[in-house]
Amino acid sequence: MARGRRPGGPDTRKAVLDAARRRFAEVGYARASLRSIAAEASVDPSLVVHYFGSKEGLFRAVIEWPFDPAVFLDQLAAAGLDGLGRRLAAGFLGMWESADTGPRLQAVFRAAVTDAAVAALIREFLTAMVVERLVPVIGRERAEQRIELALGMLLGLAVVRHILRVEPLAGLPVDELVDQVAPAVQQQLDGALPAD
Amino acid sequence: MARGRRPGGPDTRKAVLDAARRRFAEVGYARASLRSIAAEASVDPSLVVHYFGSKEGLFRAVIEWPFDPAVFLDQLAAAGLDGLGRRLAAGFLGMWESADTGPRLQAVFRAAVTDAAVAALIREFLTAMVVERLVPVIGRERAEQRIELALGMLLGLAVVRHILRVEPLAGLPVDELVDQVAPAVQQQLDGALPAD
Repeated sequence: MARGRRPGGPDTRKAVLDAARRRFAEVGYARASLRSIAAEASVDPSLVVHYFGSKEGLFRAVIEWPFDPAVFLDQLAAAGLDGLGRRLAAGFLGMWESADTGPRLQAVFRAAVTDAAVAALIREFLTAMVVERLVPVIGRERAEQRIELALGMLLGLAVVRHILRVEPLAGLPVDELVDQVAPAVQQQLDGALPAD
Repeated sequence: MARGRRPGGPDTRKAVLDAARRRFAEVGYARASLRSIAAEASVDPSLVVHYFGSKEGLFRAVIEWPFDPAVFLDQLAAAGLDGLGRRLAAGFLGMWESADTGPRLQAVFRAAVTDAAVAALIREFLTAMVVERLVPVIGRERAEQRIELALGMLLGLAVVRHILRVEPLAGLPVDELVDQVAPAVQQQLDGALPAD
């Protein structure tokens, strides 16, 4: 081990998280390299990979993001555009519904809404991943905008249901909610756009 | 003027706002009477009406809500169900777009998202008004749920656009956004419900 570098251990993991938090805040998600974070924490980059898998994994640990969006998006994309609106609605609203991921998504959302820097980081982290994985599946004009409209609508429903807790929407079984909104979500993904 | 009661003036206005803030927090919007707020502020109820018009107006002043939702909802309702999705989308997203009302809506939203008591007050304040004014216009089964779905979707789009600021949605002209989402909003308001 190089001179001045920390060995592994709980303190090291925390030092890496602290360094990552600082680097992400300073230069944004894309420009904060795993190598520069390791250097700032005085550890070998391989140790960062050992703890967090990748820069994506490190970022998720920093913001306590509760699931791997790459896995979620790959599963959605694998089954193609047909029925994607329903799968997206069921998957997204299901994450907010879950006793495991729901409260953590709420915490991330609150942080993003009240701190523009956190919002910018999450935006940068998610949009690249979403664009890479879902745009090819859409295969229509303005695919990015379509995905944002679909996800924006679903986000609003999750907020009304789980954060603002407005009845009767908050008490509606999630399956009924998915049935109710899936056509609108699908329409954003593959419907005709208004004439220019 | 009764003994111990304050005369009018800027201090009185502030005393009424402070008393209202406490009463709303203690017993909720519906149960905090204008009379009890006046008593807590040691002023005559007529003075509260003079300053704020009504309990609704007082509540809007307390939370710095930027427009009169009753006027907004009455205008929407007056033209009936036909085209309501588009008018709701244009009106709601227009409020978030405006340099006057937009930043204040963002502030109210941030407060509601981070403070469950504020969320409860706003929920109580708005749902009664929305139910009273829009449910008769809908005239379909599950009208409340329909309105919440429509408004929830629009809220999510406003959040993605103005708070999370995700491109390309954030930069899309608002007219194009309204064109794009109006059919989905209308569908929630008057479309068929999934079979039970």
